[in-house]
This record gives sequence, C-alpha cells and structure tokens, in this order.
Amino acid sequence: MTITLYDLAGAEADRRFSPFCWRTKMALAHKGLDVEAVPWRFTEKDKLPSPNQGRVPVICDRDRIIHDSTAIADYLDETYPDRPALFGGEAARGLTRFVQNWTETVLHIGLIRLVLLDIYRHLGPGDQAYFRQDREKRFGMTLEDFVGDRAARLSSFRASLDPLRRTVERQDFISGKSPAYADYVAFGAFQWARAISDFEVLAADDPVAAWRGRMLDLFDGFARRAPAYGA
Amino acid sequence: MTITLYDLAGAEADRRFSPFCWRTKMALAHKGLDVEAVPWRFTEKDKLPSPNQGRVPVICDRDRIIHDSTAIADYLDETYPDRPALFGGEAARGLTRFVQNWTETVLHIGLIRLVLLDIYRHLGPGDQAYFRQDREKRFGMTLEDFVGDRAARLSSFRASLDPLRRTVERQDFISGKSPAYADYVAFGAFQWARAISDFEVLAADDPVAAWRGRMLDLFDGFARRAPAYGA
Repeated sequence: MTITLYDLAGAEADRRFSPFCWRTKMALAHKGLDVEAVPWRFTEKDKLPSPNQGRVPVICDRDRIIHDSTAIADYLDETYPDRPALFGGEAARGLTRFVQNWTETVLHIGLIRLVLLDIYRHLGPGDQAYFRQDREKRFGMTLEDFVGDRAARLSSFRASLDPLRRTVERQDFISGKSPAYADYVAFGAFQWARAISDFEVLAADDPVAAWRGRMLDLFDGFARRAPAYGA
Repeated sequence: MTITLYDLAGAEADRRFSPFCWRTKMALAHKGLDVEAVPWRFTEKDKLPSPNQGRVPVICDRDRIIHDSTAIADYLDETYPDRPALFGGEAARGLTRFVQNWTETVLHIGLIRLVLLDIYRHLGPGDQAYFRQDREKRFGMTLEDFVGDRAARLSSFRASLDPLRRTVERQDFISGKSPAYADYVAFGAFQWARAISDFEVLAADDPVAAWRGRMLDLFDGFARRAPAYGA
C-alpha cells in the first residue's frame, strides 16, 4: 500500500524544500515504505486532505490522515514496528526531541537568515506574493534586508554548529553508528538550504559537510537525486 | 564493594563543584552503587591512583581504575548491566553524545563567563595561585575582567538554553519520562555553578529551573544536600 505525502514544492514541481517534509521523506525511506510525494504549494490549502490543517507534511496511509512531522514519525514507529526503528526506545525518543529542539531554535533560525530570499526566488508567482507579504510581516523587514548581511553572519552560523560538528566528528551519525530520526531532523534543515540556495552554508572541510554527505548517500542516494545546489 | 571516586573539592572539603564529577556522582547514584567520594584539589596531582592522568573524575572499582566521566559512564553500563541503564541502547548512547557536546560547547562556555571568579573564591590558598595563573594564561585576561560584564551576558546565556528549555518544557527529563545520563551531563553544569556561585543563572520561572529542581530531588535529594547556593 503506497503512502501519500503532500510535499512542499517550488515553481518547479520537483524542487522540494520543506525541512519538515524532508524529515518525513527520510523517515519513510528508513522504514522502507512506498510513498507518493505529491507536490503542494503554500497557496493550495484547499488541496490538502481533510481534516485540513493547511500545512505540510501530511500523510495519508490507508484511511488514516496524520499531520505534523513529529506525529508522523511516532505514527510510523508505532504502526510499522517490524521495520527499522526511527527511535530505538523511549530514551532515544526523548533525546531525539532535544536534537529537534536544537535544530529548530539554532539551526533553522540561523539558516533562515542566510537563505530566506532564495526560497522566494524558487516559488511560483502565486506563492511569491503570499510568501513576501507573510514573511515580511513576520520579520518586520523586507526579504532583501533580512538576508542582506548574510556574508557577515556566516562565521557565527558555522560556530553555532559546534554541538553537531563535535558529534559527527567522533561518530558517523548523530544517533551513533547508524542514522535514525534525529539525523533526519537535522539533515532536513540542510536539505532545505541546499534545495533552494547556492549560498554554501558549510565549509568543504567541515565534519558537518562530511556527515551531510553520508546522509545524501543513504537509501541509494535518495536525497542527493533531488534538484538542489552544490554537493 | 564500595567504589572510590576522586572528587574535586574547594577550600571546604564538602564543596564539590566539578561538572564532570557531578556527572559521575549522579551516574553512580542512578546505578545504585556505593561510593566513597574522596575530596581532591587541583594541586594534589600526586594523590591520584596510578595510572595517574592528573585529572578527575577517576574511579577505583575493585582492581580497575577508570578515568574520564564519559569512559566511566560506559564502564558502569557495561560492568553493571543488571542495574538501571544510563543510556538504554546504542541510539540513546549516540544521542547522549550530542547533548554532551551541546553542554560542553554552549552551556559550559556560557557558564564560565558568569562564575569563573566564584570558583577562585572557593578554592584553598594553594589552589588559588595555581588556578589564577592557569586560567588567566588560558583566557588572556584577569579572572575579574573575564566575568566583569556578566550581568550584561545573562540574557544571551539564558537565550542559549532554548534547546534545553523547549525540551524540558514538554517532557520531564532530557531523556524523556525518566532521567538518564544526558540529564546528568547537563545537570552537572548547573550543579557546578550552584556549588560555587550566588549569581542566579536561571530565572525562577524558567522551565529549566523546574527541571533542575526535579534533578535536585532525585535519589532522595542527593544533589540538593551538597553545599551550594540558592534553590
């Protein structure tokens, strides 16, 4: 049975850039589940299945609709316990939340100051108007101003990756010897940047870039095949 | 069989402030192992058991000498598998390293700018001279200058706790429903500050302070009974 995923897309249908959808796509690949990833745009709220929260990721698995990447990960481990575990126990599930909270409060916040305008450039015309208005209201400045000093921000962004850097310098994955959901959460952020921006957020010799490379290699290069910039 | 732990002490023998030794003490309590925590000072390098690395924590368990808090945690889980697990699987062990790397690159670095001079004030006269010389050389300024702007640093320190804050706001412990080694690693940092400084690093209504309170309550208030300031 194929699972349907509604997946945020740019002007090109195969440019998929949501960090939250990337978590879900990697989780589905980890479980070895068949998926149809349907392109969806910000302004197509009426095209999502009901109950409709107006956001992605959302998956349809047989007669179940599950919203939110975190709930989807829990659902997948509960529903498919015979397939490879995304967490591997209650302690790992709790600890994964810490990595997720670091990703959302440090990594996403840092990256958005580098790539917000590049997201805009990859949206279709209908989404562009919505996106500019929504984000300029949220951040209180133009998209151009929001990323205007990104070259100057780069070194502090890279420094903020120290916890991740030190971890993947000493073990292959955040989750240890094998990748698991915490890796997909952090990787989703880099995949977001990579999908829409040619601004290289990592130095080539950064251990974080080597880990990103290992993530891109997973599942026969599944994430590497997606339209993106750079490595 | 009682395990001997060499535990960093201040001028008062029962003021124990090493964040690394606190990890080990909490880990030993978690395993329910008997321990004799011997006070040790920076300048008593010749009093440590052989092989002597000149640092604490180090434990003696029967005929084994184990150095370094991380190696000690691994040793305890391997040697005492029938007692409560500090990790709970390989994924949790890997993820705990991320929390540890966050603790060492964000939490310790932030705290030391707030409390370094307070450590000095709690050392015996012999250690004070060593400590001032060593740390002033390392940081390239006087201890007084190093913490001189701590009031101004407090809000950015508190903001840097967001990953921890968001985690313990939504679950009781970093490791989920029950505390495990990742909690002891982060708690060790707060216990270090609390042991030697009356500078309150957390706001009273911070969810991180509530988590610290839960940690202080563990093992019949084991950590709360140690000489310290504040809550």
